[in-house]
Amino acid sequence: MTTVGVLGATGAVGQRFVQLLAGHETFELSVVTASPDSAGETYRDAANWGLDTPVPESIAELPVQPTTPAAIPDDTALLFSALPSDVGAEVEPALCEAGFVVSSNASNERRAGDVPLVVPEVNADHLGLIDVQRDARGWDGALVKNPNCSTITMVPTLAALTEFGLDRVHVATLQAVSGAGYSGVTSMEILDNVVPHIGGEERKMETESRKLLGEFTGAEVQHHDAVVSASCNRVPTLDGHLENVFVETSDHPAPADVAAAFEDAPTLDLPSAPDPLIETFTAPERPQPRLDRMRGDGMAIAAGGIQTTDTGIQYNCLAHNTIRGAAGASILNGELLAREGWV
Amino acid sequence: MTTVGVLGATGAVGQRFVQLLAGHETFELSVVTASPDSAGETYRDAANWGLDTPVPESIAELPVQPTTPAAIPDDTALLFSALPSDVGAEVEPALCEAGFVVSSNASNERRAGDVPLVVPEVNADHLGLIDVQRDARGWDGALVKNPNCSTITMVPTLAALTEFGLDRVHVATLQAVSGAGYSGVTSMEILDNVVPHIGGEERKMETESRKLLGEFTGAEVQHHDAVVSASCNRVPTLDGHLENVFVETSDHPAPADVAAAFEDAPTLDLPSAPDPLIETFTAPERPQPRLDRMRGDGMAIAAGGIQTTDTGIQYNCLAHNTIRGAAGASILNGELLAREGWV
Amino acid sequence: MTTVGVLGATGAVGQRFVQLLAGHETFELSVVTASPDSAGETYRDAANWGLDTPVPESIAELPVQPTTPAAIPDDTALLFSALPSDVGAEVEPALCEAGFVVSSNASNERRAGDVPLVVPEVNADHLGLIDVQRDARGWDGALVKNPNCSTITMVPTLAALTEFGLDRVHVATLQAVSGAGYSGVTSMEILDNVVPHIGGEERKMETESRKLLGEFTGAEVQHHDAVVSASCNRVPTLDGHLENVFVETSDHPAPADVAAAFEDAPTLDLPSAPDPLIETFTAPERPQPRLDRMRGDGMAIAAGGIQTTDTGIQYNCLAHNTIRGAAGASILNGELLAREGWV
Amino acid sequence: MTTVGVLGATGAVGQRFVQLLAGHETFELSVVTASPDSAGETYRDAANWGLDTPVPESIAELPVQPTTPAAIPDDTALLFSALPSDVGAEVEPALCEAGFVVSSNASNERRAGDVPLVVPEVNADHLGLIDVQRDARGWDGALVKNPNCSTITMVPTLAALTEFGLDRVHVATLQAVSGAGYSGVTSMEILDNVVPHIGGEERKMETESRKLLGEFTGAEVQHHDAVVSASCNRVPTLDGHLENVFVETSDHPAPADVAAAFEDAPTLDLPSAPDPLIETFTAPERPQPRLDRMRGDGMAIAAGGIQTTDTGIQYNCLAHNTIRGAAGASILNGELLAREGWV
Repeated sequence: MTTVGVLGATGAVGQRFVQLLAGHETFELSVVTASPDSAGETYRDAANWGLDTPVPESIAELPVQPTTPAAIPDDTALLFSALPSDVGAEVEPALCEAGFVVSSNASNERRAGDVPLVVPEVNADHLGLIDVQRDARGWDGALVKNPNCSTITMVPTLAALTEFGLDRVHVATLQAVSGAGYSGVTSMEILDNVVPHIGGEERKMETESRKLLGEFTGAEVQHHDAVVSASCNRVPTLDGHLENVFVETSDHPAPADVAAAFEDAPTLDLPSAPDPLIETFTAPERPQPRLDRMRGDGMAIAAGGIQTTDTGIQYNCLAHNTIRGAAGASILNGELLAREGWV
Repeated sequence: MTTVGVLGATGAVGQRFVQLLAGHETFELSVVTASPDSAGETYRDAANWGLDTPVPESIAELPVQPTTPAAIPDDTALLFSALPSDVGAEVEPALCEAGFVVSSNASNERRAGDVPLVVPEVNADHLGLIDVQRDARGWDGALVKNPNCSTITMVPTLAALTEFGLDRVHVATLQAVSGAGYSGVTSMEILDNVVPHIGGEERKMETESRKLLGEFTGAEVQHHDAVVSASCNRVPTLDGHLENVFVETSDHPAPADVAAAFEDAPTLDLPSAPDPLIETFTAPERPQPRLDRMRGDGMAIAAGGIQTTDTGIQYNCLAHNTIRGAAGASILNGELLAREGWV
Repeated sequence: MTTVGVLGATGAVGQRFVQLLAGHETFELSVVTASPDSAGETYRDAANWGLDTPVPESIAELPVQPTTPAAIPDDTALLFSALPSDVGAEVEPALCEAGFVVSSNASNERRAGDVPLVVPEVNADHLGLIDVQRDARGWDGALVKNPNCSTITMVPTLAALTEFGLDRVHVATLQAVSGAGYSGVTSMEILDNVVPHIGGEERKMETESRKLLGEFTGAEVQHHDAVVSASCNRVPTLDGHLENVFVETSDHPAPADVAAAFEDAPTLDLPSAPDPLIETFTAPERPQPRLDRMRGDGMAIAAGGIQTTDTGIQYNCLAHNTIRGAAGASILNGELLAREGWV
Repeated sequence: MTTVGVLGATGAVGQRFVQLLAGHETFELSVVTASPDSAGETYRDAANWGLDTPVPESIAELPVQPTTPAAIPDDTALLFSALPSDVGAEVEPALCEAGFVVSSNASNERRAGDVPLVVPEVNADHLGLIDVQRDARGWDGALVKNPNCSTITMVPTLAALTEFGLDRVHVATLQAVSGAGYSGVTSMEILDNVVPHIGGEERKMETESRKLLGEFTGAEVQHHDAVVSASCNRVPTLDGHLENVFVETSDHPAPADVAAAFEDAPTLDLPSAPDPLIETFTAPERPQPRLDRMRGDGMAIAAGGIQTTDTGIQYNCLAHNTIRGAAGASILNGELLAREGWV
């Protein structure tokens, strides 16, 4: 078993990390950190546990540590970061400097030229940037990022469509409240309502998508040149981001070609990797967040509503935003790091 | 006062007609019809009233009539139709044949070449098609339609953008449950969920928009040539359709130019016409359904989130789907018909 | 394995039966019935599957049968009924007459003097009524009922309190929409709303509770004499009925005594029986439907908020209404019937 | 016009005060206060306005004042307090000391023996306590309170039932999220959920009800001796508290007697007083929050579901929690203070 830790383990995403790691087949969670206020408490007391399964007994009595290099045992092979981006920006480099490998969900440094932004089924080879990173920064550790939840929902489908020549993307998202953290969206904001704006989200989708679909030359990632325009909305669902995607393509594939491309998307032999990667529905009203977010234990992308337009295609895609879109994404990156020998 | 009637007055849209007409300054509601089962009951008993204002006392005791030409007094100058489209297809032509002028929200015949599809602030001149219709069909009456609720939310903004050269539209909708009628969406379908499909809605938006923006030659309407691609979603809100619109334009207007175009959209001097037609917000998180659907007494279009893209612009728009998008739309058409001398 | 069937397998409760039976350790589901319209279709096609796990593959291709004695193989040892009560009233007696043992969730005949109404942990001995029933009706089969979902949520806690002398019960329920079936509650009725009335529910709670807590003399069940008054509300939750209970007792137990009584409630060694039967929370804001409805795989009762009053105690209880409150209840009765040798 | 101010005008309840006072027939709102951070900003900028009507133009440009005696013009005849209770406890006595009359919605001092807790239609005579208060505290001003939103929903109905001999009350509440303020309930807490606990609420209902129904002797209020037991729940509705009430009475009135008592409840000739005070429904599924919270412009109590029990009666009642239950309650108290000559 590989010994791992979770940074920022008491928040909404942190809790999801703990839930997913509790029964993990190759990782053993032995360190949980939080803000200094909670340090010293048991995890059970420090976390205001909000998931619909009980706090894992194997973790409940762990003492919460402060999020500092000194507080983390040297033999912790891999750290998962559920930190807010401002805290991540401060602490993650210090941890990498101290020799830790960090698989992070925090948004800081996702755009940095020497930080791999990875979805294993899409661009596993970008991990090669770690060598560039270590050279540039003089680290023994490493920092690897997964993209934003709304990006990760769409990118595996775009990757499957590159064979048709990906020219231009318009996307509208319908995002669940859990993506904003436990207190991010108040009930008065969202009951009987929709909020057509999520700060920074549209730019993340536009830039992260192009980096993920880019080509790693050995020295840098050349971003894909398809332009992405996004409109992001918060809707009154708990979990599961649904996205309406319009893609202009060079070729003119039929819906069946698109479905076949989705079904043929590559899968990986890693503990958290779903098979198939993309579950494709023919009933036009599917996928739906409540019914389909747990496909592949929350790690699959669900797709449907495939239609042709005069300039390409349109379809819908869906993923569980705190599993495939956050904690599960970092864990899958951790599994890839382990298999590739980086930890 | 002009004597008017409402066909299909007991359903969700029918109730909205009754609510809006109860205190109307120039129309007096004197006839309400429903399915034969309810005929003879008082309106109060026949309608399972579901709005949050009481049944108007002036209407409550009206006897419900069957929806047939014989049951409607000859001196009823104008009929509003809240009928389901299959019933509308059967009954509306018979009523027009019998000499009644019908302002209809039902979707039947919206695409017919000799049926005016009208949003008064956008294409009032299309009423000229009534002469073509009367010639072709030998009617003394007339049939005028308003578009679908999701179309009407977007079209006034598109009309304001034609000055920039309207080439291509992608739109994603987030539609309220009241658009499907009182029993159209079950609670189990929509709580904690989104349904990314509304039967027929996408095609309606694509075709109706082009007819509304088209040019009336005196003999026919030449449809606008901008292609519209739509993705329609049902979300857990009660009233108010929000839409994310991406428009490719020939010119490259700045956001301020777009806002100015929206603010300058023409208004009409009719009892139900809002002023301004388009309320434009600068806060990016507005408009929102719960907060903004009642702008202009539910008749205004709210817009916001204006941004430029490489090929044009993107923005959000919102309208109350059962007022501006249905009952209010028909009533406004009726007011236009009255002012132009058709009733 | 015992061969079993589900009557009315395509509705909301029927689907829950299928889901729970798909991996059952002693029951093998081999027959599914529905209304004549669906007969002949595969289960996958006939059911508009609405649960968040996929249709079980082992059931998906079963042909749907009509709900008649002739259509059910003689070697089906046990039938579970998810029928609406009017259909149940017609078909269940015919099936019992034909020799089948029916464990039914339908509300017909729950009050009949010779029909056992059973919650295994509460009144397993009431199964003895089957002998009375067979004598009276000349059946080879048998009809056993579980109570209504709102009753079953409360009765195990009341049973645990009988030691303190149960005099009077006031209860208010907050019931999930799934209790009304897939189309029972429209979205317009319940979004941003509460409906303080569920037809017949209050009387069911009042009479079923007293029968369940009654004493079986060998010839009949003498109802418990505690009066129960109930107010039933529908709230916008998907699953899980929460109830506020006020109990007047002869003794004056402290909250700790009540908690101990709940924790000591008897459990059974049956495949679907939870252990503990009643999970008791000390945090006053628990249990909550979303977080706690799946305790004990949806078969446990959750309780909390225990306080003393001047005349007794008050507390809250919660159960999953379509598992412990419907399909799971019937299955547990079936497991008891099997263990006791009735099938 | 009487010049008035609102303390704590930018919060959820403060905004409701501003909305209701904007067009008030006898009060002119000229002072708005908030926390020191906002002082100096215009009201439009300081308030993150969250109601579905626009910020009143007459108030929007008022400069926000700090909540201190010095900042409030001496000629402000009446202050309404929407302060949090801890701030109220600090500031309200200082303002009364400085000579201001304060009609407060804050919960501090509601139980104090010399502070009138008033619902005008129920116990207007308790205002006489102001003399006791001035004697005891040496104030020129005065402090008057309205009860908690959940108390005020029920007490007018209890007052109407005293003629039948009020012995014992059990009540369960289903309370809207707006009662907790704009950020009081997160979306993750309440979507698809119910929270069966609201800190301190149950005790407030139990003690405030007895004070309101008590008798003012000229020197003190003797509390009513009926015991009240309450269970309080938060449900996913925006506005409107619904309550299930079970009352044990000395007499045994029929439902029609109860309805008559509700309909005969006294009304007052004050600008915000509804007529009737209690709207009584015969359809058992009414009242409902979404449909009936705006009865009497949000100031009426709606009641229904009246049934007899073996020991008395049960029924449901409903009120708009931020109008009749908060801002409107304080304003009505202010109107009573003005009519009685206290301001």
